[in-house]
Amino acid sequence: MIHSTWRVQGEAKRQSILNAIPDKWRLKEPVPTLTEQRDVTGAYIQQFLSEREVEITESDAVDIVAETTAGRWSAVEVTEAFCHRAALSHQLVSCLHEIFFDAAIEDAKKLDAYFAEHNAPVGPLHGLPVSLKDQFHVKGVETTMGYVGWIGTFQGQREDPRRATKESELVRELRNLGAVLYCKTSVPTTLMAGETVNNIIGYTWNPKNRLLSCGGSSGGEGALLALRGSPAGFGTDIGGSVRIPAGFNFLYGLRPSSGRIPYESAANSADGQSTILSVIGPLAPTARSLTLLFKAVLTQEPWLHDPLALELPWRNAIVEETRSLIEQAKGGSSSLAFGLMPYNGVARIHPPIAHGLKLVEQTLKRLGHKVIPWNPPSHERAHEIAAKTFDMDGGADFRHHFSLSGETQAPQVIVQENGTQLTASEIAALNVAKREYQKEYMDYWNSTALSTGTGRPVDGFFCPLAPHAAVIPEQYKHVGYTSFVNVLDYSSVSIPVTFADKTVDVEKDSGLSEEYIDWDYFVANPDIDDADTYHGAPVGVQLVGRRLQEEKMLTLAEYIGEEIVRDVGRP
Amino acid sequence: MIHSTWRVQGEAKRQSILNAIPDKWRLKEPVPTLTEQRDVTGAYIQQFLSEREVEITESDAVDIVAETTAGRWSAVEVTEAFCHRAALSHQLVSCLHEIFFDAAIEDAKKLDAYFAEHNAPVGPLHGLPVSLKDQFHVKGVETTMGYVGWIGTFQGQREDPRRATKESELVRELRNLGAVLYCKTSVPTTLMAGETVNNIIGYTWNPKNRLLSCGGSSGGEGALLALRGSPAGFGTDIGGSVRIPAGFNFLYGLRPSSGRIPYESAANSADGQSTILSVIGPLAPTARSLTLLFKAVLTQEPWLHDPLALELPWRNAIVEETRSLIEQAKGGSSSLAFGLMPYNGVARIHPPIAHGLKLVEQTLKRLGHKVIPWNPPSHERAHEIAAKTFDMDGGADFRHHFSLSGETQAPQVIVQENGTQLTASEIAALNVAKREYQKEYMDYWNSTALSTGTGRPVDGFFCPLAPHAAVIPEQYKHVGYTSFVNVLDYSSVSIPVTFADKTVDVEKDSGLSEEYIDWDYFVANPDIDDADTYHGAPVGVQLVGRRLQEEKMLTLAEYIGEEIVRDVGRP
Repeated sequence: MIHSTWRVQGEAKRQSILNAIPDKWRLKEPVPTLTEQRDVTGAYIQQFLSEREVEITESDAVDIVAETTAGRWSAVEVTEAFCHRAALSHQLVSCLHEIFFDAAIEDAKKLDAYFAEHNAPVGPLHGLPVSLKDQFHVKGVETTMGYVGWIGTFQGQREDPRRATKESELVRELRNLGAVLYCKTSVPTTLMAGETVNNIIGYTWNPKNRLLSCGGSSGGEGALLALRGSPAGFGTDIGGSVRIPAGFNFLYGLRPSSGRIPYESAANSADGQSTILSVIGPLAPTARSLTLLFKAVLTQEPWLHDPLALELPWRNAIVEETRSLIEQAKGGSSSLAFGLMPYNGVARIHPPIAHGLKLVEQTLKRLGHKVIPWNPPSHERAHEIAAKTFDMDGGADFRHHFSLSGETQAPQVIVQENGTQLTASEIAALNVAKREYQKEYMDYWNSTALSTGTGRPVDGFFCPLAPHAAVIPEQYKHVGYTSFVNVLDYSSVSIPVTFADKTVDVEKDSGLSEEYIDWDYFVANPDIDDADTYHGAPVGVQLVGRRLQEEKMLTLAEYIGEEIVRDVGRP
Repeated sequence: MIHSTWRVQGEAKRQSILNAIPDKWRLKEPVPTLTEQRDVTGAYIQQFLSEREVEITESDAVDIVAETTAGRWSAVEVTEAFCHRAALSHQLVSCLHEIFFDAAIEDAKKLDAYFAEHNAPVGPLHGLPVSLKDQFHVKGVETTMGYVGWIGTFQGQREDPRRATKESELVRELRNLGAVLYCKTSVPTTLMAGETVNNIIGYTWNPKNRLLSCGGSSGGEGALLALRGSPAGFGTDIGGSVRIPAGFNFLYGLRPSSGRIPYESAANSADGQSTILSVIGPLAPTARSLTLLFKAVLTQEPWLHDPLALELPWRNAIVEETRSLIEQAKGGSSSLAFGLMPYNGVARIHPPIAHGLKLVEQTLKRLGHKVIPWNPPSHERAHEIAAKTFDMDGGADFRHHFSLSGETQAPQVIVQENGTQLTASEIAALNVAKREYQKEYMDYWNSTALSTGTGRPVDGFFCPLAPHAAVIPEQYKHVGYTSFVNVLDYSSVSIPVTFADKTVDVEKDSGLSEEYIDWDYFVANPDIDDADTYHGAPVGVQLVGRRLQEEKMLTLAEYIGEEIVRDVGRP
């Protein structure tokens, strides 16, 4: 009985999301099957849009605010275009948890009225639609985070007056900045999965190849952005949840160090676990869009409103210094140096990932930068620290939220059955182990000053985001390529590079040691030709910087990302 | 049997500390009893020193480095003077755990040789002796933190190669800066007491009134500095342990927010407890000495060597801005505003503390600053959060370290017998409760912008450091006046104000509501006339600022401290 109840509740919520799409924006024909039409991005989705809508929605956030803050594009026109495209996106890949287009268009009208009256924008994000992962509270809509038991509640609590009235601190700041909020995007229940699946919206597919996952846990963000149903959005990352969907959807994604973007009053899993803090980061199709959002939020002085935010305004001096190093490099001197770690010693990588890293290395070398092998303290240790942290309460938080509805979970959502709670002493020992690991990693980083040739340690290092490109459902086995960054609290940016290509990957020489590569890719599963299934999957890499080096990493990501395009071509 | 063993071991260590004092610096006459000679500061200790030694040791750290970095005073002469005075101090109040004068003088010789060769100092602290609480590891000496079971070990671990070889990160940085390390100061076992007592050195008395405590847990620092056996030192603070001994010894003491001074590789209690982090802060007789040390350490970029340190260099812009507000105030405009909280709603204050706060208020008003009542979220809640945090492991860490020797503890060292360990879920709930408290406090602080008249929230607020002045042994019952700052992770500076005076305090009108004052002070204990016992006890107050506002708080503390002296007179 209870099963049917939660299925009915989930189904009703799924239907209510679809119902929020105006008739005019509904697909009239049935969506082709996954195999009939793997790729629904680009030309496929454009067929449902006007030329003007395509122009607007395929502009990046920086270009959009250039128009909206100058009053050339109205907030309403921009908002409607993105609402339309987001509606289409959801119908194609099931990427939205909340749709509030009417409120968004009302807000956009107010922005236009403000501009008409003052001949000035409300703020630097005036009229920019921004999508939000379904952890942020927005007035007028609920937050389910994929839990059936949260439907009609505030974070699972019934009769709580904060339901649909409370706003997260980031939402308040985005409104101050002039951004328009219009939808919330899908997540896997628990937020602890590299795929996006729950009992409300089902499975969120990868728009570039609908046989594959959009990643997770900010998977709805990734899918929506891949379809340009949003120009930029915010996800969260405790083990890779911004960077994975960014990489799986050919996007840029920033995992800042903790304390920069305010998490205050956002919903979360296992809130209060303080060994590894989840952080909020932006995702977008261009690196400069990440910078726009990140920098804009900092102008709101989040440290005056969020006790965990640090008093660190945007530091333009770091940007200038980084640009100066880039300019010096153009002059021929070896002023930038990067580590390269194709293999973390735990999970071998698929050939398309090896190919992506090779392309990055080629670009760095063409630019005259020093590339050194990255041989840090064991990443297996980091992986174990992260795993122990995430299981600290033995799954109690997750089980509590499942129990609210009695729902059962997809196999991708792995939760311990009555696992053991760590004690205070055990958590303290874990915190010490983590700090010692961080210290060793830091010392290793410092030690590279001896081998870069620049007189300084590396400026960052490159590594995979996962062993594979956007993954085949239920095949995501190892998150250690991203979670070590969370253990270290480092700053990291996903950079899109290329696409898996069954005709190229099979024979190409990545230049990497054979032992790093998982050749089973071509032969593993008798039922699936992986190379064929993965064909077309986006391949991203990760640029990792030291803690709180967001200004530097964003500057480098923009520079290197553009140089990769110069070599690889624009998709 | 085991009892006699730990008593013998503690006694042997106590004797070895005394043995490290050269004959020439030993007191030839027996030290007078506590009642015969309450106050051993000033003229009393000066009788054992040369005029030149008094001149050197009664200069503050800023004046000393002005001489040593210019080559006018040799590092050896300065070091020897402080070694001598520290030796006397220890004989008078038992404030040292480790004495390494020989190594210090050798280091000073090297500094002098460096200056002779380069005609330049090694760094901004060239030739400045700096004392350290016995949590910092210094090569050549051990760290006991007051535990008998740590004698001959590394943090209680036998046969550990780090014993007497490992150096804490702060020690490394102080050496880089040219500081001279020469002694380590006493602490209460567990570090969780407002008095300083252990089974090695016994009880550390208050030099200004040896019937009273020097405070804790950085009590040896407080006592040594009160006697000018050190120009400046570093303590740690998780519940008030820098600010209490600063207040009890008429000193300035800074409790910075976490992440500014590197804690890496220092010994600690319950290491890995991450709800409230212990922080390192300087203590000294002048505010500008705190600034000198704090600023010097930041030049070492601790964030490149300590994973918990934040990339926040000394921000001179904040100093300039604060000075500009002070200048505006001098011009008559009401540009600075302060909260005043004489009573925390939990423990009423003794009349001398009420008197001290009244003096501060008078000075602030004379200067034309707005003073508003401070009515924040309940401090009882903060006190409960702190208490729960400190007992998180049910006393397991402390009991482990006691068990190494079997030692029993003085009554001031309160440890649960087989207390209960909190689980991961309980700790998470505690972390959430703490963050919610921090958020409410932050919102309250922001809200004061409406009542200051400056258009901004208060610039800081003043409150007691404890219900009493330097305390009668075993009478320290409530640490809530300091521990709330640790819950909030705020920046705070102890400022010395006046002394308890039985002839004045009994009748004076503090102007405070009678209900805030503990009049039992005069009648409580039939055996002790508290007003008489407390006579002469230093009275300090606390200036509390927002998180990571050390530059502002140090600037304000120097300004206000000097203005208080103008009104109250110099002791």
